[in-house]
Amino acid sequence: MHFSFINIIDILGTFSFAAAGAFAAMEKRLDPFGVLIISFVTAIGGGTIRDVLIGDLPVSWLSNISASVVIIIAAIAALFFGSYLKKLDRMLFLFDAMGLGLFTMIGIQKGIDHHLNIGICVTLGTITGCFGGVLRDVLLNNVPLIFKKEIYALASIVGGCIFFLLLNWHVEQSLAYVLGIILVFVIRVLAVQFNWSLPKFYEKKVR
Amino acid sequence: MHFSFINIIDILGTFSFAAAGAFAAMEKRLDPFGVLIISFVTAIGGGTIRDVLIGDLPVSWLSNISASVVIIIAAIAALFFGSYLKKLDRMLFLFDAMGLGLFTMIGIQKGIDHHLNIGICVTLGTITGCFGGVLRDVLLNNVPLIFKKEIYALASIVGGCIFFLLLNWHVEQSLAYVLGIILVFVIRVLAVQFNWSLPKFYEKKVR
Amino acid sequence: MHFSFINIIDILGTFSFAAAGAFAAMEKRLDPFGVLIISFVTAIGGGTIRDVLIGDLPVSWLSNISASVVIIIAAIAALFFGSYLKKLDRMLFLFDAMGLGLFTMIGIQKGIDHHLNIGICVTLGTITGCFGGVLRDVLLNNVPLIFKKEIYALASIVGGCIFFLLLNWHVEQSLAYVLGIILVFVIRVLAVQFNWSLPKFYEKKVR
Repeated sequence: MHFSFINIIDILGTFSFAAAGAFAAMEKRLDPFGVLIISFVTAIGGGTIRDVLIGDLPVSWLSNISASVVIIIAAIAALFFGSYLKKLDRMLFLFDAMGLGLFTMIGIQKGIDHHLNIGICVTLGTITGCFGGVLRDVLLNNVPLIFKKEIYALASIVGGCIFFLLLNWHVEQSLAYVLGIILVFVIRVLAVQFNWSLPKFYEKKVR
Repeated sequence: MHFSFINIIDILGTFSFAAAGAFAAMEKRLDPFGVLIISFVTAIGGGTIRDVLIGDLPVSWLSNISASVVIIIAAIAALFFGSYLKKLDRMLFLFDAMGLGLFTMIGIQKGIDHHLNIGICVTLGTITGCFGGVLRDVLLNNVPLIFKKEIYALASIVGGCIFFLLLNWHVEQSLAYVLGIILVFVIRVLAVQFNWSLPKFYEKKVR
Repeated sequence: MHFSFINIIDILGTFSFAAAGAFAAMEKRLDPFGVLIISFVTAIGGGTIRDVLIGDLPVSWLSNISASVVIIIAAIAALFFGSYLKKLDRMLFLFDAMGLGLFTMIGIQKGIDHHLNIGICVTLGTITGCFGGVLRDVLLNNVPLIFKKEIYALASIVGGCIFFLLLNWHVEQSLAYVLGIILVFVIRVLAVQFNWSLPKFYEKKVR
């Protein structure tokens, strides 16, 4: 049951990242295969970097075709919904925030499986959550979202730390997972709101 | 004999990609060592990403010096021919299309050797063929050629699929290889021609 | 003793690259976590690419937390010193040149440990020294420093070749290391000076 729970958040995260990647690629008016490639890179980029760093090779999406199927479905869906939808920005942002939470927790779990230091686990979670988007932004010639004033990596890091606190307080792991995902999502969404009005406050607080 | 056949297309592909990389770098007025590095990245980038994803490490060009020799020769040749040649664009494009075909087939062969799914084999072929160029474009601050309207990844994908069809029809593997390479090359060249005059047709057809 | 000597130059190199990365990120007005991430990428990027290519996985900074501690200290130091310092450019450049020398030698040592060809050892040294900075520049949307007219990769390559010459002349390895580091640093610093006044001379000489 625990295994299938991880599988479900993996599929959801893959779908939301692929869709976010597809929308970003469509905004740049790429051709359909460019859209598909950006969807792939966004969805599996963070996890691929994580697996390469750990040495967990071949990377899972080579032997397990399911991620590719989800990504292709997401890209096609985005290509068709995209022509009717106008409010891409908001949707793109929410997909991205959801994926950030999901992938952060998957990356942390991988770190735990490999008996790594808690700080490194949180780093792996952040890489899994953030670096697919960084690759996407680099390929699309955007300034990576992660480096903007908005809290992005910080949401991932705080969510990861709270997850370990929850485990420490003997919260059941599946629950801690879900809480971690929601926490990252909420921090990310709130951060964008606060940042619009309070950029200086953020800078003072963090330093 | 089959082994040496793969070696020959490997050397030819390495040479043409390295030359294409060198010309692209020279167009951006990089210094000779920048040209050499871009030649390397263009020629071995796709294969390196493929080998890292598969876990086929250390990557072959670390232990087999021949690829490096070919790349250095190609870069030096490009540096000298380049000063006399004016029609770089056309040559750059033809080198690139040839390398695309050659590397696509090499990547597919690697996938077959690792008993991977046909779809994944085609993906590995596309990565091998396209991602050296993507790395080159990212490093040179160009919009990756692959994401432009012109058919690029699609040539690789179609060539790979036809290759598997040919194998299915019991065509001899070496012949299927050559046909696959030629097919990718022809699709790529024709696509640029058609795309100049028929961009909308392409978009309708693919979607 | 030899082992601890390598450790010391590793820490120094990590610190100077992380600080150089932090300053580059601060010049682009990234938020503090963006600065931290760029510090990480700059400091461990070259070594990480080297270890991935060799297949020396998991990469060392996942299991050995010390590099991460050094990087975090460097990033925080840069964030605080940065607000008082005005001459960032010069300091950034000197940090960078020092790191270039240190990491080049570390990369060459790794190649020797894996019994690789001398040319490949020098390449690994160059990758270790240069590609953290290339990743930093790509992420910050700068044209990579390495591709500019200034000698950068060449300093790394010449330093590496001289190091092997020194070993051949039976110079003690630790001394050859230090001389190699100093040589790369001096070439890099002098190159920038000469290049300011003699760009054409450089181009003639290298070709």
